[in-house]
Amino acid sequence: LKRIKASGLKLQFCTNETQMTREKFVEKLQGMGFDISVAEVTAPAPAACRILKERSLRPHLLVHNDLVPEFAEVDKANPNCVVIGDAAENFTYANLNEAFRVLIGMEKPVLISLGRGRYYKETDGLKLDVGAYMKALEYACDVQAEVVGKPAKMFFDSALAVMGVPPQQAIMIGDDIVNDVGGAQRCGMRALQVRTGKYR
Amino acid sequence: LKRIKASGLKLQFCTNETQMTREKFVEKLQGMGFDISVAEVTAPAPAACRILKERSLRPHLLVHNDLVPEFAEVDKANPNCVVIGDAAENFTYANLNEAFRVLIGMEKPVLISLGRGRYYKETDGLKLDVGAYMKALEYACDVQAEVVGKPAKMFFDSALAVMGVPPQQAIMIGDDIVNDVGGAQRCGMRALQVRTGKYR
Repeated sequence: LKRIKASGLKLQFCTNETQMTREKFVEKLQGMGFDISVAEVTAPAPAACRILKERSLRPHLLVHNDLVPEFAEVDKANPNCVVIGDAAENFTYANLNEAFRVLIGMEKPVLISLGRGRYYKETDGLKLDVGAYMKALEYACDVQAEVVGKPAKMFFDSALAVMGVPPQQAIMIGDDIVNDVGGAQRCGMRALQVRTGKYR
Repeated sequence: LKRIKASGLKLQFCTNETQMTREKFVEKLQGMGFDISVAEVTAPAPAACRILKERSLRPHLLVHNDLVPEFAEVDKANPNCVVIGDAAENFTYANLNEAFRVLIGMEKPVLISLGRGRYYKETDGLKLDVGAYMKALEYACDVQAEVVGKPAKMFFDSALAVMGVPPQQAIMIGDDIVNDVGGAQRCGMRALQVRTGKYR
């Protein structure tokens, strides 16, 4: 990372993290010794915020409490879409019914999902990820969610736009063959899979 | 109903009710003045119990508390399948994760769903039905649920078997064009849609 920065190459960190703000995410990585700033992070929540503004969408949020500050600037009155993230403990029966009622009440339901992961592992075991709850709402409302985050093309496009670099001149480095490598390649970027992290 | 019974025609009530036992269901209808007994009711839970026994399946249950007695006779130790019903308040984050972990831990996950409804209405508003949660588990575990209840062919076959009547000699009467009429017709029965109940 230090050598990349020293070389003058432009850099964005693309993460699907939706359980904390970019600020917290950066603090965590800085704590591990990485030289990283908030402006260098492309994450689903801020990408969703750009979409919401562009399309004058006012979200009903079903997200993790620690992610809510990312939506501070967004008008949430009289919602005309639902944004779902990995809400974890906020995935209660009541909250899911509420998000469903907001969606089904729309003439044309708009569901934006911060990722499509199936599940992930925590110290106390496997947990259902946002993708599972996205599927539940998709089925109940007969809609297709718009997914923000890797491997969505739009998500990589967003990172490229921040750097002002065309896809042909960028390379994606990641440990996930689908989300990192596949997604970037479909965007016209080259990609490199590292055999660290979750690589098996 | 009285005229059907007086005529000597055989009769089964086919319901997708999964929030109470057949006993409670019958009590409720008797309270409304209907002449009905438990033996005349074909419902998803007892149909699922027959499947469990036939295939030596031991279920992990994610169902409504009031439905649990229907599974009293079933061996539930060391589960090798998951049975999901409209669990309502039991659809907690913890319970969903637990059902998921049981499923994903199997070599070949078996998921049995007591219905595939999208949602239903209660006095305090619309609620997500079992189908939505079934989709969440299907996606997370990359499995297809086996659905017990209308409009599944096997469910109507079960009712016909109880009466000892071939499908050509039976008629289904219901208010739902998909679950009642369509399901019965695919079974080789004739069907009659009444314009009462939820018919619009």
